[in-house]
Amino acid sequence: MSSPALLTDRYQLTMLAAYAESEHAGRRAVFELFVRRLPSSRRFMLACGVGRALPLLDGLTFSQEALARFARDPVLGPALSRPRVRTLFEGFRFSARVFAVPEGRVVFPGEPLVRVEGTLAEAQLVETLLLSIINHDTRIASKCARIVLAARGRPCLEFGTRRTHEQAAVDAARAAYIAGFAATSNEEAGRRWGIPVAGTMAHSFVLAHAADDGEDGESRAFSNYSTLFDGETTCLVDTFDPLRGVDRAVEAVGARLRGVRLDSGELATLARGARERLDHGGLGGASVVLSDDLDEQKIAALLDGGAPASAFGVGTMAVATPDAPSLGAVYKLVALEDARGALVAVQKRAPGKGSSAGPKQVHRRGFDDVLGLATEPLDGEPLLVEVLGPGASYDASVDAARARARAELASLPESLASLAPRRDDEGYPVSVSPALRRLQDAVARDGKVTI
Amino acid sequence: MSSPALLTDRYQLTMLAAYAESEHAGRRAVFELFVRRLPSSRRFMLACGVGRALPLLDGLTFSQEALARFARDPVLGPALSRPRVRTLFEGFRFSARVFAVPEGRVVFPGEPLVRVEGTLAEAQLVETLLLSIINHDTRIASKCARIVLAARGRPCLEFGTRRTHEQAAVDAARAAYIAGFAATSNEEAGRRWGIPVAGTMAHSFVLAHAADDGEDGESRAFSNYSTLFDGETTCLVDTFDPLRGVDRAVEAVGARLRGVRLDSGELATLARGARERLDHGGLGGASVVLSDDLDEQKIAALLDGGAPASAFGVGTMAVATPDAPSLGAVYKLVALEDARGALVAVQKRAPGKGSSAGPKQVHRRGFDDVLGLATEPLDGEPLLVEVLGPGASYDASVDAARARARAELASLPESLASLAPRRDDEGYPVSVSPALRRLQDAVARDGKVTI
Repeated sequence: MSSPALLTDRYQLTMLAAYAESEHAGRRAVFELFVRRLPSSRRFMLACGVGRALPLLDGLTFSQEALARFARDPVLGPALSRPRVRTLFEGFRFSARVFAVPEGRVVFPGEPLVRVEGTLAEAQLVETLLLSIINHDTRIASKCARIVLAARGRPCLEFGTRRTHEQAAVDAARAAYIAGFAATSNEEAGRRWGIPVAGTMAHSFVLAHAADDGEDGESRAFSNYSTLFDGETTCLVDTFDPLRGVDRAVEAVGARLRGVRLDSGELATLARGARERLDHGGLGGASVVLSDDLDEQKIAALLDGGAPASAFGVGTMAVATPDAPSLGAVYKLVALEDARGALVAVQKRAPGKGSSAGPKQVHRRGFDDVLGLATEPLDGEPLLVEVLGPGASYDASVDAARARARAELASLPESLASLAPRRDDEGYPVSVSPALRRLQDAVARDGKVTI
Repeated sequence: MSSPALLTDRYQLTMLAAYAESEHAGRRAVFELFVRRLPSSRRFMLACGVGRALPLLDGLTFSQEALARFARDPVLGPALSRPRVRTLFEGFRFSARVFAVPEGRVVFPGEPLVRVEGTLAEAQLVETLLLSIINHDTRIASKCARIVLAARGRPCLEFGTRRTHEQAAVDAARAAYIAGFAATSNEEAGRRWGIPVAGTMAHSFVLAHAADDGEDGESRAFSNYSTLFDGETTCLVDTFDPLRGVDRAVEAVGARLRGVRLDSGELATLARGARERLDHGGLGGASVVLSDDLDEQKIAALLDGGAPASAFGVGTMAVATPDAPSLGAVYKLVALEDARGALVAVQKRAPGKGSSAGPKQVHRRGFDDVLGLATEPLDGEPLLVEVLGPGASYDASVDAARARARAELASLPESLASLAPRRDDEGYPVSVSPALRRLQDAVARDGKVTI
C-alpha cells in the first residue's frame, strides 16, 4: 500500500524542496479551497469529502519507502541531498489547522470549502490530495442531492460501481449516502463506511436458468432465489417480457415477494402494469423499483406522470454526473508570512483564473450568505468550523454528514431546490462584506497587503 | 486494506449463493464484456485495463474477514448457513480462463474486450470489478488517444490528478501513458506503474515569493527554483503578466532554463510572444508548454493556427473526459452449460439493452473487423488472446501496452483518426460472420441453442 503523501502531483514535492532551500518552508500560510463557478445544471453544491480527507491529512509524513524513492529520482534526488531539504522531508509531519464547511452543508461558488492554516510546506503539500477528494466527493454529493430532491421521499439506491473506478466507487457510494440515498450496491462501501447495502439479481441470473428451460426458466430463477432469500426477493423482471416477468414473480415467489425491478423500456407504462399485476396478486406492499440510466430529470418526469414507483436505482448518472462531469475546485494561497514576520494577503491575477486574497469565513443567514474576513464579526452562522487542530470538535461520521444534508435539503428555498437549469441572470445568494472587498481591492492594487 | 472480492455489487454475492443452492454454480459459463455504442465524439476505443485487472482476478478468494462479515449480514448470513453456500464461498477461488483484447489495441462497439470462461460462479462474481476497471481505463485511454493524435508528436503531460478520485488518478495516469502521453504529474503513478513523472511549480510558488517583494517576487521564485533544480526548471509565467513572466524567467534562470508554461489567457498569442522572447534571449531550445483545460480540439486549433507549442499539459479533459464521461461496457452471459451438460448459447432481449449470444472472436484485417464465433476459422488476426489460464503468455506490462497503442495509432486510417464528430451515417468497420448471425437468429427464435 502506498503512502498518501504520494497521492500528489510531482510539483508539490519540488516546491517543497525549493521552499526548504530558500527558507520559506516554515512561514505561516493560509490556503483556501473553493469552486469558481458551477455549471448551469447546478444551483448549489453539497459539501462532501472532508471526513474522508482528515484521517489522511492528520499527521501525514513521508514513509521511508517514499524517501528512498525520492533519493533515487534523477530530479528529486540531488535536491534531497541538500541538508535543509533532507531535514524538511525527513521531519515532515502535517499538523496544520484545518477549517472546513461540514460535510452535508450546502455551499456556493466563491465560498471556501476548506481553509488550511499552517506552515507553507505543510499547507502546500496537501493541495492535490485535498482537491482530489473534495472535487470527487462534492461533485457526486451535489448531483445526488438533486436526485434525492427529485425522488420526493422515495428511496434512491446507488448502483454506479461499474461506471467508475473500483476504488472511487466505494467513496462515490459514501457521497451518495450523505446526500440522502438510502443504500448502495457496493459491498466494500458497506464495510468501510457502514452504509446499507442492497441488491438481488442481474439479468444473467435469469438467463442462467433459461439455459435449461428457455424463457420459462425465469420462474425457476425467481423461485430459486426466494427459497434462499425469503422475504428479501426483488425480482428483475425485464430479461424477456417485463409484465410477463411480473406475473412469473408473483406466481413463483408469492406473498413474500418484496418487489420487482424494471430496468428497460417505457418505465412509466411498465411501472403501471407492474403495479396493477402486483396489486391484483394481493401484493399491494411489494415495491416497483425502477432503474435504467435514471437522473433527476427522468425521475421527476416519471413522478409528474404519476408512475407508481416505489424506489429508484441510479447508477451512471449518480457517479459519472455527465451534466457536470468534473468539479473545478481550486486551492489557492490567500495569505503568507513575509520576511518581516507579518501575515500578508496575496492573490493571483490570471484572467478568469484569479484568486481572492485573505483568509475568509462564510456567514449564513437563511440562505443569504455573506463572505467576510475570517476575523470579521458578522451576523449569521459561521459555516467553516475547525475540523483538525487544537480547537476541533468535528463529528466526521457519515451519519452526522447525512443528518446535516437532510436538514439542509429540507430547508432549501424553491429557487435552489428547483431542478430547472440556472438562467444566466440567476446568481448565487452570496454577498461580500465591505471589509473583504476593501482588502481585495487593495491587494489588486498593491500586490500584497499586511493583515 | 479490503479484499478485491468486496469491490463488487451486492447482487453478485446473493446470486453466487443462489447458484450454489440450486447447484448452478459449477456449470461451465462464458461471459463477454463489450460496449454497445460509443458517443458521437469517439471513432474508436483504445482497450485498456486488463493488465490492471489480471492480478486482482488471478486466484481471487474471499478473505476470512469478508466471510465473517457476510456471516453477520442479515441477508447474506442466513444464506451462508446453508452447507452448499458455505462450501462455495469458503472454497471460492477464481481460476477461470480469461481472453481479452490486449491493452493498447483499437476496438469498436459490439466487439468483446474480454471473454471469461469458467464456472458460472467465478465468471459471474468478477463482473462488477472487471467492468469498473475496463470502463474506467478504456474511457480515459480512448480520450487520451485522440489528444495524442491532436498533438502531432508533441509530448502530452497528464495533469488531471486533482480532477478525479485520488486512487482513480493513479490509474488514469496509467491509461493516459498507454495511450501515448509522455508523462504524468502523479507521483504514485510513477511508483506503481513506472511512468515518467513531471512537474515543477504552481502559481502558489510564485505568490509565496510575492509576499516579500510583490510582483517582483516572481523573479526570485524562478531563481530560487533553478538554484535547486538546475537544468530542470520550467517556469510557470502567468501568475501576474505572462510575457513579463517569460522575461523574468529568461533573466532569472538564464541559459539553463528548460522552458516556460502558460496556463491562462489567449494561449496562441501568448505562445508566440513567449517563443519570441525565449529565442531573443538565446533560448531557442527552451520549451513553451501550454495548459488550461486543453482537449484534442483546442490542441488541434492551436497547432492549426501555428502556435509554437512544444508540449501540452492536459488535466480535466484527459481524466474526466467530459464529452463522454462514462463508458457503458456491459458484461453478459453468452453461453452456459445446461442440465444435460451441453453448452448452450443464450441472450437477453430487453429493448436496446439486449445481448449477443455465443462465445465470440474478433478477426482484424487492416481495420476491417469480422466478429465471428470463437471456434470459427476466419481470416485475419484474432484480437482476443488468452491472458489468464493454461495457454496464457500475455505481456501485461505498461510498456508493452504503450508500444501496441503507438503502432495501432500510427496505422489508423483517416476515417478513424479524424477528430471530427462521427456522423450518424458513419458506422464502425465491423461485420458479423454468417455463422454467428445464424446462431444469434436461432437464439432469438428459440431462446437457447446448443453449440
